[in-house]
Amino acid sequence: MLEKQLIRGTFVEAEASGRLSIRESSYLLLEDGRAAGFFKTIPERLRTAKLTDFGDALIIPSFSDVHLHAPQFSMLGLGFNLQLLDWLNTYTFPSEARFCDEGFAREVYSRFAAELIKNGTTRVCAFSSIHVPATKILMEELTKAGVTGYVGKVNMDRNSIPELQEETEKSAEDTERWIEDCLSAGYSVAPVITPRFIPSCTPRLLEALGKLADKYKLPIQSHLSENTDEINWVRELEPDCARYWEAYAKYGLWNDRTVMAHCVHSDAEEREAMKTSGVLAAHCPGSNMNIASGYMPVRQFLRNGINVALASDIAGGSTVSMMNCMVLALQASRLHWTQNGKEDGFLTLGEALWLATSSSDRFFGKKSGFSEQTPFSALVLDDSALPPSANRLSAEERLERIIWTESTETIKACFSDGKRLNL
Amino acid sequence: MLEKQLIRGTFVEAEASGRLSIRESSYLLLEDGRAAGFFKTIPERLRTAKLTDFGDALIIPSFSDVHLHAPQFSMLGLGFNLQLLDWLNTYTFPSEARFCDEGFAREVYSRFAAELIKNGTTRVCAFSSIHVPATKILMEELTKAGVTGYVGKVNMDRNSIPELQEETEKSAEDTERWIEDCLSAGYSVAPVITPRFIPSCTPRLLEALGKLADKYKLPIQSHLSENTDEINWVRELEPDCARYWEAYAKYGLWNDRTVMAHCVHSDAEEREAMKTSGVLAAHCPGSNMNIASGYMPVRQFLRNGINVALASDIAGGSTVSMMNCMVLALQASRLHWTQNGKEDGFLTLGEALWLATSSSDRFFGKKSGFSEQTPFSALVLDDSALPPSANRLSAEERLERIIWTESTETIKACFSDGKRLNL
Repeated sequence: MLEKQLIRGTFVEAEASGRLSIRESSYLLLEDGRAAGFFKTIPERLRTAKLTDFGDALIIPSFSDVHLHAPQFSMLGLGFNLQLLDWLNTYTFPSEARFCDEGFAREVYSRFAAELIKNGTTRVCAFSSIHVPATKILMEELTKAGVTGYVGKVNMDRNSIPELQEETEKSAEDTERWIEDCLSAGYSVAPVITPRFIPSCTPRLLEALGKLADKYKLPIQSHLSENTDEINWVRELEPDCARYWEAYAKYGLWNDRTVMAHCVHSDAEEREAMKTSGVLAAHCPGSNMNIASGYMPVRQFLRNGINVALASDIAGGSTVSMMNCMVLALQASRLHWTQNGKEDGFLTLGEALWLATSSSDRFFGKKSGFSEQTPFSALVLDDSALPPSANRLSAEERLERIIWTESTETIKACFSDGKRLNL
Repeated sequence: MLEKQLIRGTFVEAEASGRLSIRESSYLLLEDGRAAGFFKTIPERLRTAKLTDFGDALIIPSFSDVHLHAPQFSMLGLGFNLQLLDWLNTYTFPSEARFCDEGFAREVYSRFAAELIKNGTTRVCAFSSIHVPATKILMEELTKAGVTGYVGKVNMDRNSIPELQEETEKSAEDTERWIEDCLSAGYSVAPVITPRFIPSCTPRLLEALGKLADKYKLPIQSHLSENTDEINWVRELEPDCARYWEAYAKYGLWNDRTVMAHCVHSDAEEREAMKTSGVLAAHCPGSNMNIASGYMPVRQFLRNGINVALASDIAGGSTVSMMNCMVLALQASRLHWTQNGKEDGFLTLGEALWLATSSSDRFFGKKSGFSEQTPFSALVLDDSALPPSANRLSAEERLERIIWTESTETIKACFSDGKRLNL
């Protein structure tokens, strides 16, 4: 017997076009936590179903964050006087090295998982560190908090600091054992193959990781064309690759289950390769501004038909808040537009919402928050405590105001995969 | 007999160079609320003075916001699909028209004043609306909350909506009567002459306002070179002025007590006129991104020796938080740097802090937060509840983290003009 319940509120979701689909004051039927249709009034057959009435609140799909570094939650906001390669060596690697300490990992990751839910993010594609025990702790804490998605044990066997440098064979073996362990662990998050980036991985390691991705049919995450010094370095390390992306493709790490963060300096050929292969581009506006990497022209990517989704990229980004990430995407897009001949227009709020919610559905192998037969993942936004408004606001304007003012405190309930979470 | 008290903490302030001056674990003596020297240990003669020990907390000068529109607190985050002139007509003017209602004004301004203090802003240069009663309510609420600085009744006698359009003589007369009333009202904020911008004011009104500024020796606030359509319009309205600034200078509204918001499209001649006249440029990075006005090259302004200070410009900006404003200034500066040939470097955290605290001291006619004989205005920042850090942080890194993560909740105490405020 299916458990039936009704959720009432004003449902808003964004389409790929940026158009907002709005269902004013409606009922959503959930059957065992899966969406099973909207109603304007309660049908006779559902009179006895449990009703959760959120009144005037807006209900939107919960947020997805397609690129972030969980251990860097312990260094938020640090080092932005530096650019990528110096920042990694000075701040990031020493911070990640601390995650050999399981107690420290538990302390940070329990805080981190709670912070994701508080900010409405129920789905992530996350880097851990090289450490398998800490990676499992991260997966446990995300599972406890109700976060879904992917987590990757990081691989790096060159150009690191001694505490973070792995031996090639051991790195590959540890990774395979960890994948096997995950199969039976009951985590809400699945493993993802995670070469840090080309400079951190020898060809032998990249080859081994490509084989693991293929053997276990796993997604792949890494970094692409973030910073000009990085790109030049990749060119030295992989002289037979004319472009950065080819170094991933060469080792079986470039396909329609791959997400690549940044793509700031990707040229037309690299963008074409993303489109042809179905690679997802993770747009990280905060990080790209903070460590002065540049700007991924997101409007051009969309026009080119490339899959794009938003990402906080902590701790290149300085907060896990996807409301903040949307606002930075909107702001950076406008600034870029004014500085670059006003081509391609600038992002709309609806597009930003789509990039923060549903555009990554295919990558995560699951339909969007409100789709029929999909486990319900959503945020209930109560804006009644925001400052008094001069004029009556439409549902669209209410959502606009909540997001642009980054009013996380309006999140009054959060559902992930059919379950209501504790906030 | 002077009331003496000691405040203990780690004091940090920014110099114009961006260098942070740090006094680790020190005592500041206050005499009747005025700073009277720092000590590493308590001198014998002060053994009996009242001590407020903030332990490990950081103490910084409180924030100044040199350009914002108080009535627009009722429309935060709305309308950023539009640019300046359409945004004004569609959202801003109808919102400001509501402030003919004194009850509504009281409700909004009490919330607004509390929000400033919660975010650590104790000094503002604020636009009100055209309404004298609502402007007085704003000044009362700021006084109650402990905010200092300037407030201006807005003047506009052309190109507005009917509800917001004044008759020229009455606008000038109302303004003078309001100035006279302020002399004896006991507000903590003083009046500032406030022509909205050239398109809103006829030459006769501008002339009258210039005379009032001179007669009462008042500061002046307005907008300059924000948006290209606006600039073209000013050129049509004031055909004998080759540049926007000349339209203010012509009517006596351009001097060393003037603050001009935006200056996004000011050319070398206009920048030179700002420098020569000692005009303060209000840099509003949030607003300039949100309504796609462009970028004021703040590093170039600093190199040119122009006075600059930061401003939220709500509701072009979407929050009163000066931590947010600093971060947007830092981010926009980095993005601009990557898009424009990497000239002039990018802003440092210390420079941003200086622009949000002490750079406007001369404009407000008062020395900085910690200066001797100056009423103490400061924020006590307690970062002990932030996520655990991987490595021990210096005072500078702690401040960096608080600001970049916009951790307003770390503000545990706020002093304004020698008084500790209720948070």
